[in-house]
Formats: sequence, C-alpha cells, structure tokens
Amino acid sequence: MTEPTLAARHLEDFTIGDRIRTGSIHITEAMSVDFAQTYDPQPIHVDAEAARDSIFGGLVTSGWQTLALTMRLIADAKPLGATPLIGIEVQNLRFLHPVRPGDTLTVEAEVLGSRRSESRPERGFLDLAVTTRNQDGRPVVTQRWTLLVPTRDTAS
Amino acid sequence: MTEPTLAARHLEDFTIGDRIRTGSIHITEAMSVDFAQTYDPQPIHVDAEAARDSIFGGLVTSGWQTLALTMRLIADAKPLGATPLIGIEVQNLRFLHPVRPGDTLTVEAEVLGSRRSESRPERGFLDLAVTTRNQDGRPVVTQRWTLLVPTRDTAS
Repeated sequence: MTEPTLAARHLEDFTIGDRIRTGSIHITEAMSVDFAQTYDPQPIHVDAEAARDSIFGGLVTSGWQTLALTMRLIADAKPLGATPLIGIEVQNLRFLHPVRPGDTLTVEAEVLGSRRSESRPERGFLDLAVTTRNQDGRPVVTQRWTLLVPTRDTAS
Repeated sequence: MTEPTLAARHLEDFTIGDRIRTGSIHITEAMSVDFAQTYDPQPIHVDAEAARDSIFGGLVTSGWQTLALTMRLIADAKPLGATPLIGIEVQNLRFLHPVRPGDTLTVEAEVLGSRRSESRPERGFLDLAVTTRNQDGRPVVTQRWTLLVPTRDTAS
C-alpha cells in the first residue's frame, strides 16, 4: 500500500459553506473526439469541418464528457474519504459556456446544507453547489448535487 | 453517402406529448469498468471485490455513464434531424435505481413544452421529460432537458 488508508466521512462532518477544490484536467482533441464517438457522435463533437460551419465555429466537447470529467475531479478529491460518492439527484444543471478541446477544467463544490433521512436515520443527504470552470476561471457548468451520505448512527 | 440526408427540424415541429423512443444499448462489464477507470474510479465501479462488500452487493455502472449512454441513444434517434442537440439545462435528474454491468438501457423522451426566446426569436427552448429504463422496464434515471432549438425564423 503506497496510499494512506482514508477514513470514512459522515454527514455530521460537513458544515454549510465548506468548500472542496479539485485538481485540473486538460482536454485533448483526441479525448474529446473519442468520448463523442462513443457517447455523443454529433458532427459538432466529432467532425472538425462540420463543427467550423456550426454556431460554435469549431469542435466542442460533449457536455456529458464535461460532466464525467467533473465527477473524475471530485472523485479524486475524495471529499467523503473512503465513503463512496452516491449521487441521488442533480438539480439546476446549466451548460453556461462551450468547452473545447484544449481547455483545462477544474471544479469547486460548496456545501449548501445537509439533512438526516426521516425514514432511515443511518443516512442523510448532502447538498453541494458544483461549479466547473475553464482555464480562464469562467464557469462552464453549474449544478446542484444531492449525495447520499451515512450518518454516525451507521456505525452504532 | 449511404445515409439519407436528414432535414433540420424546428421548434414549431414539436407538439406537447410527442414521444421519442430510442434503440437500446447493452452494458458489458468491460464497458462499465473502462468508463469508470477514466471518469469515476471508485471501488463500487471498478473493483468487483470491494463492490461486493458495498451497499450495492456488486459492481454498479457510474451514473455518469448511464447519462452518457442516454445521450447516445437519443443522438442516434435524431429527434431534431440534422439540427444539433444543444442542451442548455437539466432539471430534476434522479438516479432511481442502480445500473449494473449486464443491463440493457433504452430511453423515452416526451415533449413537455416549448417556448420562443423573447430576446432572440430565431431560437427557442424545447423541454423534454427523459426516462432511461433497464431491461425490466424499470426507470433508472429520469431528468428534464431543455434544448436550444432554432425556430423557422432562422431561415428567413
């Protein structure tokens, strides 16, 4: 084992306003086109010539890849330690600005609130405001996540 | 050209209640683990042994891959013909049931409404209720998409 063992984090460990900051990922044209060929094979994502004639004026990265990369950045930041990140709801997801091959993404998440489940007190819900930015600091996607997070009762 | 040329579709071509039905995609364990290694490398997605000991009792597919596959199914259905599918907002996205390697997904989208942009009459917004189901017909993800769609004014 070269990585230290991570402790699990619980709902009670989070406070409104806590921020999670991630590393960054650079999107190459190959990554962007490869993803789109499998998951979103529209000309604006896979065909440079057709994309030039579109309203984007060039290739753009699939929004679903931007979301997947957002997950990767947050997964690597391990905000829940050893506890899995289990999403149950996404609200207010907005694609604000095109992401293009060559962009570098980074993510910030802020704790909006938490609440214990009424029916199952061993778990609760953590709401996060998640902002994905490009290399200019411009938000490209914003969304609100609700994660399922164990409470300390789990261990009892 | 072996494919017929598709006509563009405009906002006015859609009526509330119109339904788009897609083909299906079978998720293999290799697909599921490969995606997760790049985009969501949590033990529940990439480590069969660790997943067995989790609340899921076995490997589950990343929710972000389920969303990306939902896009692929809708992209292939070409509901806008030659017009690109440009998403601007997602609301009420719920992960209702785990998706697992071996599952087969299909999608249905229903037109909820449309409205012309007040500031830019050459475009408008199309709202769709998107339901992704597994091979048992059980909804695994539901969400509401808002797409940016040209109006017929575009051509004038």
